[in-house]
Amino acid sequence: MAGVCSGMKQIYAIGIGLIGGSLAKDIKRLDPEVVIHGISRKEATLNEALALNLIDKKATLDDIHKADLVIVSIPVDATVALLPTILDKISDHTLVVDAGSTKEAICKSVEDHPKRRNFLAMHPIAGTEFSGPSAAIDNLFLGKTNIICEVEKTAFKLQEKALKLFEGIGMRMRYMHPVAHDKHIAYVSHLSHISSFMLGKTVIEKEKNERDIFDMASSGFASTVRLAKSSPEMWTPIFKQNKDNVIETLEEYINNLIQFKALMEGDNFEAVFKEMKDTNHIRDILNGII
Amino acid sequence: MAGVCSGMKQIYAIGIGLIGGSLAKDIKRLDPEVVIHGISRKEATLNEALALNLIDKKATLDDIHKADLVIVSIPVDATVALLPTILDKISDHTLVVDAGSTKEAICKSVEDHPKRRNFLAMHPIAGTEFSGPSAAIDNLFLGKTNIICEVEKTAFKLQEKALKLFEGIGMRMRYMHPVAHDKHIAYVSHLSHISSFMLGKTVIEKEKNERDIFDMASSGFASTVRLAKSSPEMWTPIFKQNKDNVIETLEEYINNLIQFKALMEGDNFEAVFKEMKDTNHIRDILNGII
Repeated sequence: MAGVCSGMKQIYAIGIGLIGGSLAKDIKRLDPEVVIHGISRKEATLNEALALNLIDKKATLDDIHKADLVIVSIPVDATVALLPTILDKISDHTLVVDAGSTKEAICKSVEDHPKRRNFLAMHPIAGTEFSGPSAAIDNLFLGKTNIICEVEKTAFKLQEKALKLFEGIGMRMRYMHPVAHDKHIAYVSHLSHISSFMLGKTVIEKEKNERDIFDMASSGFASTVRLAKSSPEMWTPIFKQNKDNVIETLEEYINNLIQFKALMEGDNFEAVFKEMKDTNHIRDILNGII
Repeated sequence: MAGVCSGMKQIYAIGIGLIGGSLAKDIKRLDPEVVIHGISRKEATLNEALALNLIDKKATLDDIHKADLVIVSIPVDATVALLPTILDKISDHTLVVDAGSTKEAICKSVEDHPKRRNFLAMHPIAGTEFSGPSAAIDNLFLGKTNIICEVEKTAFKLQEKALKLFEGIGMRMRYMHPVAHDKHIAYVSHLSHISSFMLGKTVIEKEKNERDIFDMASSGFASTVRLAKSSPEMWTPIFKQNKDNVIETLEEYINNLIQFKALMEGDNFEAVFKEMKDTNHIRDILNGII
């Protein structure tokens, strides 16, 4: 069978943690002829990725003129800083994709770059609360959504190769404006990370005796607080880049909590009931999400 | 082998939803000689429980003088209202246990009852976001914690039977004062339900176009908002009974969110990073929880 990479053989993964490493695993499995080169600021990360067989070789940015495909999966502030340099260094036929959780600043960083048409901006909505090469797993992207922004700014041939690759690893594409992406993703992803971190903080602050938390905490608590295990290195730049949207969602969330508390303080438990009943509707919305 | 029920044959389950139904399943599997009688306000629930083989027979409160064991798994306001009547009706040898998520009001409701020593107050910390007989599953309690309150107020023989039963279905016992239970459980269970309901509400309010939520929402969002599927019929009385503790946790949670928002507004992303880094510590705390 023709590989999912449409003949793109030399693949450079800049960042080989949860997302970059999982992409590398899927690509290598589905298209064994590719050579995956890993690039990272940290030598230890490269060695770990090699030991885990996520990459075939170590490389540096000075090698990417040989790349058919460059996959950028690093914190979003690093992407904004590095993307113009990456485009400077690639050849005319190279496809560059990023996997950042914000899209506006990243698209803006290369909007006037002469090689803008070599870049496809995307956000594969997949992940776990873990990070680093050891977090990479097979089939992380299977059945997940890949939000693609400004697809019209990417060269036709490279669009085609990218879509074939990401369909090949099991994703469904959705197309969106970067500004709309950042606004909606603040609600369905960024806010839930903050709610989870602050829930974890509230409980840790109160419960100095951790044995008690451990013994009394249910799987429900574990589920709600799971995202508080996420990497601050990755999430701080996301909150910074998407500051205005995230603050707006936080305000609405805080107001809803304040209102719920007021209903309880006023002993209006009929309204408390109704708040929950109305929100149960989330069941139908979530039915299609794993 | 001797059954987990220590010869208690006639078991009456008052309430046969997620908790009562799952207990009935485990007991029947581990001690097939028992007869499980179901009691519910709703005939439809009884019929469903019969069809699902959760119970062997339908019964009413007037039958419980024949009970060896009565398991009360109904909303906590109904438990407070009904528990004195249940104790009125049982025989001298009957063991009564409840499974409510609050303990102070329930213990208080029978503190002076002449049959107080027939009652064991407990809170098996297990569940899912589903409810009703169809939510009952095998081994829901395996490896989970069972908080037992005021154990010293239960007759020795009945303590022994209860502990043998709940150890038999795989639970580990922890002993706590009802006031301490209600205070701690507000943090590790009740608060996370509200954070989840309000997160669901915030997103639903904003995202009228549900298809967009569905497509962009990640498994992380699904995990954080999972508890917003929970039953308002069960949770409203819990929040009412544990009002003061829950309001206290909500205040602390809201303050932490407001502070996080202020850090973002002030562009103090070093502090944002630190907040998350410090809370990552939840990883170690959660390691033992499924």
